[in-house]
Amino acid sequence: MGLFLVNRSRYNERYMRTLYHLWLSPQCRKVRIALSEKKLEFDMTVENVWERRHDFLALNPAGEVPVLVEADGAVLSGSDVICEFLDEIHPEPPLIGSGALGRAEVRRLCAWFDGKFNREVTENLSGEKVMKRFLGLGAPDSLAIRAGHVNIHHHLDYIAYLVERRRWLAGDRFSLADITAAAHLSVIDYLGDVPWEDHAPAKDWYVRIKSRPSFRPLLGDHIPGVAPPAYYADLDF
Amino acid sequence: MGLFLVNRSRYNERYMRTLYHLWLSPQCRKVRIALSEKKLEFDMTVENVWERRHDFLALNPAGEVPVLVEADGAVLSGSDVICEFLDEIHPEPPLIGSGALGRAEVRRLCAWFDGKFNREVTENLSGEKVMKRFLGLGAPDSLAIRAGHVNIHHHLDYIAYLVERRRWLAGDRFSLADITAAAHLSVIDYLGDVPWEDHAPAKDWYVRIKSRPSFRPLLGDHIPGVAPPAYYADLDF
Repeated sequence: MGLFLVNRSRYNERYMRTLYHLWLSPQCRKVRIALSEKKLEFDMTVENVWERRHDFLALNPAGEVPVLVEADGAVLSGSDVICEFLDEIHPEPPLIGSGALGRAEVRRLCAWFDGKFNREVTENLSGEKVMKRFLGLGAPDSLAIRAGHVNIHHHLDYIAYLVERRRWLAGDRFSLADITAAAHLSVIDYLGDVPWEDHAPAKDWYVRIKSRPSFRPLLGDHIPGVAPPAYYADLDF
Repeated sequence: MGLFLVNRSRYNERYMRTLYHLWLSPQCRKVRIALSEKKLEFDMTVENVWERRHDFLALNPAGEVPVLVEADGAVLSGSDVICEFLDEIHPEPPLIGSGALGRAEVRRLCAWFDGKFNREVTENLSGEKVMKRFLGLGAPDSLAIRAGHVNIHHHLDYIAYLVERRRWLAGDRFSLADITAAAHLSVIDYLGDVPWEDHAPAKDWYVRIKSRPSFRPLLGDHIPGVAPPAYYADLDF
């Protein structure tokens, strides 16, 4: 399940690809799934970004995860930057669609979930319930949490709208759009806050993603102090 | 200076490329500059996104600008999606770097300005001073404005750090990273809120951008009710 800092020097000597991440970051989960879809091996090391560690800021002056350090020492930061890079260097299987318009559709939906869903749902739910605690920003805002619970229905409806017209979110092929949406939903699901019972088409789509080998490691995540609901790792939830 | 809705039908018949935009949106300015750098003709039509116009939501269910409708009817939304598409279809001049690592660096800096700068500066200054009024969200928050004034110094220092090591932000070539940064700064500059006098290297870089033909149309923008400072369009400010 990845390594922590204490072991890194040994692995650096072996030039292993390393992902600096946080467990409940959807952007980090997106990169983990993309790496696994491409069957690329990697180590993981948790980066407590709020500590603003000097050596980490040297890797990414923005001070954010995910950061991927390649075996040759190349440093990439930001989930879209990393995924575009991986898709270019390791084209199989392609995750960003085919043709300029196909890629535009994948990227549009990635921006939808990393932008709109993140702002309207992820930040209101996992942001308030979990990240605020880590960042020492005080008690959760109950109005924000209520907004997150309202907003998520619109997004699950939009997923249904898409998968009633296409096999996967951006078209006939599984893509980074599915990965991005599932990464966000997996974090909200870990908190038990996805109203699956009201959204059968979105649930059917999520069941298909959950059964992919690339998604399995996420179902084993256990964040200290934040227990997932009983069905979180259940493939027939 | 572009067209407004009343004239659109005539141009639709001529199958003209059309950009739906807002004058003080950095993301829309980014697309305008990119289109001009590639010498692509386009019409512009202002989209008051807060009206949530039905026909516009059909183009982009996210309800945001920029949206680009190509001459063949293809619809693209989101500034990165549009710019990646343009760079793929119209490769000259290349705006997203060369080589996978070169492109990663351009994209990292685009994400820096559209993400970090946007959150720390643009939303605190033009968001509070201008957009809140349009959106009917009440009076500007003076604490947010103060934060924007503090934060912008760090970003101008970062621009200086980069251009002291490279000719342009992402390397030896002018790129979408420069366009993205300049698009944000041009909006803040329109409000008279960029402390250029304290940041000579960033100013030198901005002077170089301001003199590019692709940037000139932005200097002619005049937003009703929001006058720019006298030096806004001045190339030797």
